[in-house]
Amino acid sequence: MSCVMNSDEVRMWVYEETLPNGEKLTDVINQTNENVKYLPGIKLGKNVVADPDLENAVRDANMLVFVTPHQFMEGICKRIAGKIRADAEAISLVKGMEVKMEGPCMISTLISEELGINCSVLMGANIANEIAVEKFSEATVGYRQNREAAERWVQLFYTHYFIVTAVQDVEGVELCGTLKNVVAIAAGFVDGLEMGNNTKAAIMRLGLREMKAFSKLLFPSVKDSTFFESCGVADLITTCLGGRNRKVAEAYAKNGGKRSFDELEAEMLQGQKLQ
Amino acid sequence: MSCVMNSDEVRMWVYEETLPNGEKLTDVINQTNENVKYLPGIKLGKNVVADPDLENAVRDANMLVFVTPHQFMEGICKRIAGKIRADAEAISLVKGMEVKMEGPCMISTLISEELGINCSVLMGANIANEIAVEKFSEATVGYRQNREAAERWVQLFYTHYFIVTAVQDVEGVELCGTLKNVVAIAAGFVDGLEMGNNTKAAIMRLGLREMKAFSKLLFPSVKDSTFFESCGVADLITTCLGGRNRKVAEAYAKNGGKRSFDELEAEMLQGQKLQ
Repeated sequence: MSCVMNSDEVRMWVYEETLPNGEKLTDVINQTNENVKYLPGIKLGKNVVADPDLENAVRDANMLVFVTPHQFMEGICKRIAGKIRADAEAISLVKGMEVKMEGPCMISTLISEELGINCSVLMGANIANEIAVEKFSEATVGYRQNREAAERWVQLFYTHYFIVTAVQDVEGVELCGTLKNVVAIAAGFVDGLEMGNNTKAAIMRLGLREMKAFSKLLFPSVKDSTFFESCGVADLITTCLGGRNRKVAEAYAKNGGKRSFDELEAEMLQGQKLQ
Repeated sequence: MSCVMNSDEVRMWVYEETLPNGEKLTDVINQTNENVKYLPGIKLGKNVVADPDLENAVRDANMLVFVTPHQFMEGICKRIAGKIRADAEAISLVKGMEVKMEGPCMISTLISEELGINCSVLMGANIANEIAVEKFSEATVGYRQNREAAERWVQLFYTHYFIVTAVQDVEGVELCGTLKNVVAIAAGFVDGLEMGNNTKAAIMRLGLREMKAFSKLLFPSVKDSTFFESCGVADLITTCLGGRNRKVAEAYAKNGGKRSFDELEAEMLQGQKLQ
């Protein structure tokens, strides 16, 4: 799903599905202001308009929010390239990277290169269901150079229960969101092997240190202070305590490695994938 | 309890108690190599000698390890002042500080000032029972200037399951060990109010930031990097997940503040105190 904003209207591209009762998902969202399939029980603002037509959804938008699983990003960008406003600003909430022949490519870079526009990122300790019921949380906007654009994103997302901070370190913020999922697998192994709290805290700390070292190896501009932001230590904590990577890794270790990750993923994640 | 080392012998001062069967605790420890009251089920090295006589225990020691509740530290120091080797090195595992009329005084400073010797500290994500059964964990030695003394402490404590790292930031390390207990109370409130994982991660992150700011206000020499060590982020994690401060604060919040901390402490901690 990728959201597109245009003045007060939030046009949300939705991959169209037919619901069991024969209705189209976008129609139901627009009639009920509720995404009955993926976020049931939560009322969306009346200014959110679901649109099954990707090109139509992005056409007039001045702010583009990307929130799809990372494996779909390249295809989506290729479909909308040349069909958006030249002055549009993008932000990516997508966690992950494309590993290409010539090396790893961050999703924000992919967006910038495919669409020819500036792209910031938003990451943090942000379990979606908790944000939806307005429990207090924080997030980090990472931006490259355009501080004004970053401030606009902060203004857009900021509420009394969702505190957003901008830092000039797009790669650091994006890599935090991506690499913590690797650490969560290690944390899951520790849980599965019942190694205790000292070991788990050590794994999380060493994982954070590895995240920092790896990020700085890829991008020497990455700042230490970014790892103290919500996208860093806080997201690491939530992901290593809850999170599907941790959960499946725990099951893997509990089974002594005798059941594959593919098998456990299919059984435990109801169609979602490890990231 | 304060331990004292002298070549291969570890002389451990034990506050003498008579056990229900009429035997003295120190006698039982020396006969069985087990602290049957405070660490039952764990065999101590045969070189550990329990001694009920504080002055005798410290007299010939060249390395002094302090591990008592912080409220007893000043009295203990006054009792042994002038009765130790002038070249003894001290290390404090004590968490807390003395708040005096003239301002806060770190325990390592108290030891140095009262005894006229150098004092390092050891802190980290170190739940004692887990270390006792040799589960992997890490710790941080904080030292002031004497790097050689710090290396000797590292050598003394280091094993294949207990990884010790030395950093030149005695105040930073000691304040981490002290201040995380305050953050754990906030984490307990979040748990008691069922505010969710995003909020808890935010509280822990903001707590870590406050710990850093407060430490640097007291001691401008404190380093940011110390908060990435085991004494920092890792100990904060274990304390905010388990830990008695978290637990009692959770109960306080669950009871809507209607039962006092004193009452809950007496009921829940079997004679231990919040720190």
